[in-house]
Amino acid sequence: MSDDDKQKNTHRLILMPSGRKDDVPHGMTVLDAARSLGVELEAICGGRQTCGRCQVVHERGKFAKHGIISGDDHLSAPAENELAYADANDLDLSQRRLACSARVIGDVLISIPPESQARKQVVRKDARDITIRLEPSVRLIYVEVEPAEMDGISDWQRLQAALASQWNLPDVDIAPPVLADLQQALRDGGWAVTLTIWKEREIVRIAPGYVDELIGLAVDVGSTTIAGYLCDLLSGRIVATESMMNPQIRYGEDLMSRVSYGNTEPQGVNRLNRAVIKAINDLARAVAEKAGLDSRSITDIVLVGNTVMHHLYLGIDPVQLGAAPFALAVSDALDLNARDLGLNAFHPAAKAHILPCIAGHVGADNVGVLLAELPNLDDQVTLIVDIGTNAEILLGTRDRLLSASSPTGPAFEGAQISHGQRAAAGAIERVRIDAEKGTTRYKTVGDDRWSDQVAEGESLAATGICGSGIIELVGELFRSRLIDSTGLFAEDADRRHPGVRRTGRTGEFVLAGGDQTAAGSEIVVTQNDIRQIQLAKGALYAGIKLLMDHLGVDHVDRIKLAGAFGSYIDPYYAMLIGLIPDCDLENVEPIGNAAGDGARIALLNVDQREIARRESRRVDYVETAIEPDFQAYFVEAMDLPHQSDPFPHLASDLPPRQSKSRRSAGRRRRA
Amino acid sequence: MSDDDKQKNTHRLILMPSGRKDDVPHGMTVLDAARSLGVELEAICGGRQTCGRCQVVHERGKFAKHGIISGDDHLSAPAENELAYADANDLDLSQRRLACSARVIGDVLISIPPESQARKQVVRKDARDITIRLEPSVRLIYVEVEPAEMDGISDWQRLQAALASQWNLPDVDIAPPVLADLQQALRDGGWAVTLTIWKEREIVRIAPGYVDELIGLAVDVGSTTIAGYLCDLLSGRIVATESMMNPQIRYGEDLMSRVSYGNTEPQGVNRLNRAVIKAINDLARAVAEKAGLDSRSITDIVLVGNTVMHHLYLGIDPVQLGAAPFALAVSDALDLNARDLGLNAFHPAAKAHILPCIAGHVGADNVGVLLAELPNLDDQVTLIVDIGTNAEILLGTRDRLLSASSPTGPAFEGAQISHGQRAAAGAIERVRIDAEKGTTRYKTVGDDRWSDQVAEGESLAATGICGSGIIELVGELFRSRLIDSTGLFAEDADRRHPGVRRTGRTGEFVLAGGDQTAAGSEIVVTQNDIRQIQLAKGALYAGIKLLMDHLGVDHVDRIKLAGAFGSYIDPYYAMLIGLIPDCDLENVEPIGNAAGDGARIALLNVDQREIARRESRRVDYVETAIEPDFQAYFVEAMDLPHQSDPFPHLASDLPPRQSKSRRSAGRRRRA
Repeated sequence: MSDDDKQKNTHRLILMPSGRKDDVPHGMTVLDAARSLGVELEAICGGRQTCGRCQVVHERGKFAKHGIISGDDHLSAPAENELAYADANDLDLSQRRLACSARVIGDVLISIPPESQARKQVVRKDARDITIRLEPSVRLIYVEVEPAEMDGISDWQRLQAALASQWNLPDVDIAPPVLADLQQALRDGGWAVTLTIWKEREIVRIAPGYVDELIGLAVDVGSTTIAGYLCDLLSGRIVATESMMNPQIRYGEDLMSRVSYGNTEPQGVNRLNRAVIKAINDLARAVAEKAGLDSRSITDIVLVGNTVMHHLYLGIDPVQLGAAPFALAVSDALDLNARDLGLNAFHPAAKAHILPCIAGHVGADNVGVLLAELPNLDDQVTLIVDIGTNAEILLGTRDRLLSASSPTGPAFEGAQISHGQRAAAGAIERVRIDAEKGTTRYKTVGDDRWSDQVAEGESLAATGICGSGIIELVGELFRSRLIDSTGLFAEDADRRHPGVRRTGRTGEFVLAGGDQTAAGSEIVVTQNDIRQIQLAKGALYAGIKLLMDHLGVDHVDRIKLAGAFGSYIDPYYAMLIGLIPDCDLENVEPIGNAAGDGARIALLNVDQREIARRESRRVDYVETAIEPDFQAYFVEAMDLPHQSDPFPHLASDLPPRQSKSRRSAGRRRRA
Repeated sequence: MSDDDKQKNTHRLILMPSGRKDDVPHGMTVLDAARSLGVELEAICGGRQTCGRCQVVHERGKFAKHGIISGDDHLSAPAENELAYADANDLDLSQRRLACSARVIGDVLISIPPESQARKQVVRKDARDITIRLEPSVRLIYVEVEPAEMDGISDWQRLQAALASQWNLPDVDIAPPVLADLQQALRDGGWAVTLTIWKEREIVRIAPGYVDELIGLAVDVGSTTIAGYLCDLLSGRIVATESMMNPQIRYGEDLMSRVSYGNTEPQGVNRLNRAVIKAINDLARAVAEKAGLDSRSITDIVLVGNTVMHHLYLGIDPVQLGAAPFALAVSDALDLNARDLGLNAFHPAAKAHILPCIAGHVGADNVGVLLAELPNLDDQVTLIVDIGTNAEILLGTRDRLLSASSPTGPAFEGAQISHGQRAAAGAIERVRIDAEKGTTRYKTVGDDRWSDQVAEGESLAATGICGSGIIELVGELFRSRLIDSTGLFAEDADRRHPGVRRTGRTGEFVLAGGDQTAAGSEIVVTQNDIRQIQLAKGALYAGIKLLMDHLGVDHVDRIKLAGAFGSYIDPYYAMLIGLIPDCDLENVEPIGNAAGDGARIALLNVDQREIARRESRRVDYVETAIEPDFQAYFVEAMDLPHQSDPFPHLASDLPPRQSKSRRSAGRRRRA
């Protein structure tokens, strides 16, 4: 450094990757200097050179573009604490320095590695290029407290004084369960503790000494499956995931039978509530164990679920959701104490954020989907469909979003179908029919082979047919014209394919003979089963049509299929049978558990909770039950569309494309 | 009314008893007019003429002093609702009107009966002339809500809208447990509900329709006894009281053995916590049943207790209170949810206010005493002593208040005394000795007769001796000079009174022969028992002396004896043996359960909670354990004072007053 430089009162500081620069006073720490430039670094210990989270890289050399030389001796030599930290943690101080220790004594260029940035960017979904800022509702701070003396001052007062002086937090509350840990933690930590603070307002955990652990859990409470995502709130990473059956299933498979159970059985709501809360507790323990953690260190939880689940995990009787006017008790987002919900597997002072609902049949899960998929930021018309016992529909653009719920019934989940079953091992999930050759082949869940690829004398030992399987079968029957657009078996169907059995005016299709099934008896799909699928897809399509009318559009630009069922079904067949409207097949995609993704996004960033709150109010709800057009659309949409193979490129073994004139007959669906 | 009057736009309104007056617009309701004059009337229904709480008296006649004539037709005729209310409730509308209905249409003089005043005065203690304003933390409001429609708006949003428009309360929260009652209450009440609102911030109860019930419970958690005062928060009256043993007694009679139990037994603190919480729940149920109420309608609770009880009902390990520096975990007042304490006999959303502590050994019970007795408002020097296993001492004036705790041990409670027992039926509580005649007589708890008043061959069937009994015995022995000022039996004692038995250098006093006791064996007080009382009173006196030194006074103007023991002991004997300093005997009074009174005061008025908070911080705590003078004072105060009968007027059967010179030898105690 030149003598001139030594005498300067300020030095130029360049921060990378932001490129921010300014002149900062001689001797200021890099931490304070960065802060003065608006760049926040991690610093749990409050600048005591003990947490090591504020590491930065001192780049040396001549940086012509910035007009500085960043010299070896332009940062102060490591202080004692910094040397001790480096020694204990194998930190090479020639490469990296602690920003809270290193002082600017000459012009320097500093690179801030991503892990040292206080508000990290987290890639939101693996498949796409969307990132969110890491800013959870809880953060860690390390405090050193004056030891107790015989002055009548309580330990909490001492801690308050330390928070005021060291962190400028004079008005923080302490959650009642944390009071019980306070004295022991202070003494075990030698009067130094790490606090977990919720929204700068309330201490929700106290741990002795310096503790580097901040964990949250996002939970999607589905009617069938409960999924949990355990997240490290310091890095934003998912550290473990786990899912389990919703034990409420024993009180009724579909939502309305659970509403009815709650309404008719003594203590019914109480039982349903306890069942789902116990499941969330069990899930938390399981997912924490998977990650080698204790679920009682989880301090923040985000819950999503459909409206019935939402009411049941809040301990509210969902009976009003079972009949018009389908009034929700509460739809706003709620910040609760997890203990008030009976969530006792978590830290006793953990917080639970409940994402808002939109309307009686459009729940917090759909708000999660909205957060994850952001149709509200899109210029193009996006349709998002989440299919379960009800199908929830979101449709719109950045200008306007609409939602509705259609009563599809449980047929897509394999219920009310003769040999229907859930998508579990052995269930037929893929079907191909060759009407010319009179053959049928299929695939089962959990097996990569098609049924015509197994060795002589062997079989796939099919157990039944699941939703995606029956959709493909209906699609294939229709494409082969073995059934007509009303869903009835064609007059000549049994002559054209040996799988078709006609009995008088009705019929059925034998998918697997007794020698190919686990039970030894045939798996057949009856005329009535086809009818059930038509009813379900008609209800869904009618809801979509209604929303398109309300939005004033005659097409959608992209379709997203949410949930497990959305991942299983082949968009080709979904479009073929008229489950979803026409759309370029490339723009139809399964989005998996988007509700769970949304819960995780809300867990990682508090601002996203505000966005969820705001956007959920902005969504216009259309109640299909009172829309005069719904019934007509429903009846109309029961039929299979007057087209059969618009997308031959997707399935090369399918018959050649139909004539142009035939396609244009599908007008009704595009109206 | 004259034509002139009729044309006036304003009329003169006089409100009695306040005498406030103003001109108010023609046609304004008396309720609104009173409000504009700063006089708040009760009005739960919000002016719907249904609750009947705003009744006022229309005084007719010429009021020369006020310059008006209050005419018959100067209030509007009763409206339909008012007539209906009057009919249903036998209200004579010629006498009383509903202020929310009656409109000012001429000059009027209105009397507001006390029960219609929104902030009533409540006589604080039966015996004294102190009143407090009734202003509890909770109040009732009646709301009519728009019925649910098929618009996706939740019931909670509808209620929020009603609160904003009808009560100007746009930002009220709803306690999570109330959410579960919301929908049913709205429907059962025909979309009209009565809410209990805590501090204008949070709905803690919802009841269908119009409900006129607001109940709170003040609880004094003593080491031995837990006392509950169930209060009607609309009138301020105590509707029932109940007390029960503190079940923690099974884990140790005195506080320090409970601290030790908590510290050494597995789950010890947890057990102690559960025991006291269960007791409070049981007490709540019992006291509510006594009043014909359901304890689950209680929405506010105030708890006081010594510091160990305070920590244990909060679920905090009191171990730090067992050793220097006697650090409290928390001393500030706390507003908690009762459910967080495990208080499940109450309304699930009930609030619990925890009065603050002063220091490691001066607890919330002493803050209660302070609220009830107000030494902080007195010009004279007040000494308040609450005697238990520890004696807590408050001393001071409006300028300065001091507190300390003296380790008296359990002797005053009958423990560590040969035939000692608690003050229960059969315990000897009063003793008189006539040394000249060589006789002894006594009274037992629960019997009005002295032992020399029973028939020949009968007895009082004494079971033991309680604290007040042994204090009187020691006083009588000393006054009769059967023991000397060091507490030892006099050389000639056994010759002077047949009750004295000497064995070598020591001795004992036979209080009741085997034929007079329930067990058939003698009740005696040994030399060692006398020693225990000397130790206990020495410790107490030394603490008082220390505080007097700190305050810089050599006398006290009044002495108040708090707690059960303070009610049992005869101030004459307490002063005679030097338990308390010299003071005009007329200014010594037992104040009963002042801690419980303080809890009740804090229950009835939220401002008093602020006063408790502020005053508890203003009290200077003196830690006797580290005061160099304490040990010397203690040793010195072990002796009985060099005086024996300063107050002959109180006990006419006592021997004549001692000479002046003998009294002045009592210098030490007045120093």
